Amino acid sequence: MSEQRLLELWGEIRDLQSAAYVLEWDQETKMPAHGQPGRGQVLSTLAGIKHQRLIAPELRDALDACIEKAEGAEKGSVLAGQVRIARHSVERAVKVPERLTREIAEATSAGAVAWAKARKASDFSLFQPDLERMLGLQRERAAAISPGGNPYDALLDGFEPGALEAELEPLFKSLREELSPLVHEVAECGHTVDESPVLGNFPAALQLEFGRRVAAAVGFDFDAGRLDRSAHPFCIGIGHRDVRMTWRFDETDFRHCFSGVLHEAGHGLYEQGLPGGDLYRSPIGEAASLGIHESQSRLWENQVGLSHGFWTWAMPHFREIFPDAKRFSVEEIWPALHTVKPSLIRTEADEVTYNLHVAIRFEIERALVHGDLPVADLPGAWDDAYEEILGIRPPNHAEGVLQDVHWSHGLFGYFPTYTLGTLTSAQLFTTAQKELGDLEVAFAAGEFSGLLDWLRTKIHSRGACHLGNDLIVEATGAPLDAEHLLSYLRENTRQAYRL
Amino acid sequence: MSEQRLLELWGEIRDLQSAAYVLEWDQETKMPAHGQPGRGQVLSTLAGIKHQRLIAPELRDALDACIEKAEGAEKGSVLAGQVRIARHSVERAVKVPERLTREIAEATSAGAVAWAKARKASDFSLFQPDLERMLGLQRERAAAISPGGNPYDALLDGFEPGALEAELEPLFKSLREELSPLVHEVAECGHTVDESPVLGNFPAALQLEFGRRVAAAVGFDFDAGRLDRSAHPFCIGIGHRDVRMTWRFDETDFRHCFSGVLHEAGHGLYEQGLPGGDLYRSPIGEAASLGIHESQSRLWENQVGLSHGFWTWAMPHFREIFPDAKRFSVEEIWPALHTVKPSLIRTEADEVTYNLHVAIRFEIERALVHGDLPVADLPGAWDDAYEEILGIRPPNHAEGVLQDVHWSHGLFGYFPTYTLGTLTSAQLFTTAQKELGDLEVAFAAGEFSGLLDWLRTKIHSRGACHLGNDLIVEATGAPLDAEHLLSYLRENTRQAYRL
Repeated sequence: MSEQRLLELWGEIRDLQSAAYVLEWDQETKMPAHGQPGRGQVLSTLAGIKHQRLIAPELRDALDACIEKAEGAEKGSVLAGQVRIARHSVERAVKVPERLTREIAEATSAGAVAWAKARKASDFSLFQPDLERMLGLQRERAAAISPGGNPYDALLDGFEPGALEAELEPLFKSLREELSPLVHEVAECGHTVDESPVLGNFPAALQLEFGRRVAAAVGFDFDAGRLDRSAHPFCIGIGHRDVRMTWRFDETDFRHCFSGVLHEAGHGLYEQGLPGGDLYRSPIGEAASLGIHESQSRLWENQVGLSHGFWTWAMPHFREIFPDAKRFSVEEIWPALHTVKPSLIRTEADEVTYNLHVAIRFEIERALVHGDLPVADLPGAWDDAYEEILGIRPPNHAEGVLQDVHWSHGLFGYFPTYTLGTLTSAQLFTTAQKELGDLEVAFAAGEFSGLLDWLRTKIHSRGACHLGNDLIVEATGAPLDAEHLLSYLRENTRQAYRL
Repeated sequence: MSEQRLLELWGEIRDLQSAAYVLEWDQETKMPAHGQPGRGQVLSTLAGIKHQRLIAPELRDALDACIEKAEGAEKGSVLAGQVRIARHSVERAVKVPERLTREIAEATSAGAVAWAKARKASDFSLFQPDLERMLGLQRERAAAISPGGNPYDALLDGFEPGALEAELEPLFKSLREELSPLVHEVAECGHTVDESPVLGNFPAALQLEFGRRVAAAVGFDFDAGRLDRSAHPFCIGIGHRDVRMTWRFDETDFRHCFSGVLHEAGHGLYEQGLPGGDLYRSPIGEAASLGIHESQSRLWENQVGLSHGFWTWAMPHFREIFPDAKRFSVEEIWPALHTVKPSLIRTEADEVTYNLHVAIRFEIERALVHGDLPVADLPGAWDDAYEEILGIRPPNHAEGVLQDVHWSHGLFGYFPTYTLGTLTSAQLFTTAQKELGDLEVAFAAGEFSGLLDWLRTKIHSRGACHLGNDLIVEATGAPLDAEHLLSYLRENTRQAYRL
């Protein structure tokens, strides 16, 4: 009875979230320009109602009754999972005073505007006061959530429940220690990869057609989803039968759109594979964490989309759809998809340098949250870190510290989930290879359902039943280990650059 | 203070409505096929929350304080208007027990499915039990809203506040008495209108281009709105800066899409012209009534779009956009736009017969609501009425009693607003002509802003400050009179058929 009540109340909270997702998707893809102020208002009202419902006594009562009932329930059982997720959300919502929630919402609005202005002017000082305010509010929030605890953990836990700063440190350390020398080795090896197969003139409409064909081939169900254009690609699960991805393109470089669509399709496959039936709209009917979500996008984007096998299958489609593109073999395009080059912008980084961009942000935001780095010193610290780790110094703030929107939205502790996802994707893929046999052979034959079914069973259909870490152990038999990614990157880079 | 509280609470209710509008628009235009069940759930949750807020004691308290304050306030004043609208909605919501509201929601879901099935099979018996249930629930609802009162008035008041069955009767009577003979006269006059200018091959993409150009020319702001394709055309005001219209087309007949877009653009101009600033999201920031809304769509669709002046301006655009269409003069296309022919389907009817379709529905639904017509006898009554009034008998239920979705949704008392709108459009247009001089001359020069400004002042910017009837008196100096429409139709028909 109490469980049913919990699910009823939770279902309505999820409905409010679904409504907000539709409004957000619409805002980025279809909304007329002048709709913005009204839309912000409506989204704020929906967020307010959702918050009220999360902290409502009736939800607390239903939850308390379920907590009692779940005592002694098996870890990983449905009831234990429902209670864990609901409790996590409710307690985080209750602990933050309404005044603070409102102030953060205001600071987010103002901060996003200031950030956009500062980025346009490439002048960090225009954003500094807003960032100082936001950082102060987030530190206050962390203290409210976890009084006397590690404030970075308190924030991280909002995106990756159960993850700890102390566990991330060694992961990022080994990435830095292994990847920095690899980048160095590439720069000094004297071999240049010919990128011309993927550069030239790739009309947007044809890139979209190729992207749609690839997304459908790997299993994205277009009867339960869409692909639309937006300024920044994203994927949003309005429900598991209505999953929307977006794309953008660069007509001179084939890689951006192609990788972007496969990345979002990976998110989309996860959303479409989340539990339906009775578990839909329930706490565990959701993704396990942002890191697990990112593991799905990175897996399809990289382990699948950049593989020899995939391109053996894809090449005839590529030739059919881009009749004017240069003719080249799989052996010629493959290295062009695996170039390694230190660059300034995270979202455009290659596979090898990508996690170094994230590592820099992890170091810096920890220092900010712990009070070890004053906001005024942030641009210098950023530029120094790029010079030290990637060997290049940003020429301006726009291409440096102002490139990412996250901190203006108060998202501290979010960046690490990108790397957690990347590490997880490699570990999942090596496990799947071991269990399913040579996947490259399947890919070459256009067979992606073996891998998808494996992910459906091991990851998608589990929803949020487990914490991310536990899900990884269950699916792969071992805790997260950076070595899977590192050996994958070493091997690819060795091949591409003939090291 | 109480007024501010009322507006705060009302604003959130309007935000919930705006969210639902986005979801409904999306459902009809963009949503993937499998998204339907989830979407129905989310819309139902939003409707439930909106209802809870309408009947919440805090809204009642703020409203009561405002009612006291507004006593003695001038009729037509902002405060009086706010109180009148809010009170109307709150009292209608409070009077209907939650159990009944839920049953009606369920009956609507089931009824819509049964209706679609019955229509497809052209078999009324498949829909009859659902309609009986819905009619029973609506009669119960009417009794709850107005115990001992006229049940038809109680339902009508939900769409056209202040309108009375007894006032509609003479209007429909004079339409029947005047238009039936006119239709007869046309049939017997021996003159046939050449419709070939508007028949042929009109590619959808070009019809859309023409529609967009015309909508922009009459003043629809595409930075504050959109035009998308849907199965049934509609217009929805998410907010006054985000107004969405939809279109459909028939590639063999130019008139459907053209009239449809101008019709929806008329609704759209009204929505875009509703009060902004402090009145946005307030009770009187909305349309005055469905009838007034329809007056705006009919005015632009007919009085403007079918006029000689309009076509003098539009012909070069028509020729440019449809290079393959037959060449003809304004004098040749004009009669083709004013053909009069009894037909079975309301939404495809010409200007003259249209209101006879509505008159039939008005008679029948009154009889249903008053218990004078058993649902089982409905198909026969429908067919008899068509034979009597339009001279044609539907060959099946799909083209007869099952053609409109309204009753399956419980919308009794809605149909008359179509005719109220049409009557109002004619009265507004003759008034505008009188005040602004010969509008045909302006139209011929592509000048539509004079008329639009007049409507902005007299109708749009007034929002829901007045009841529909009072707004008509204020704008035109007289109560609604069918003679404006009748003489307009007589004159056009005389010209087209050389009577």
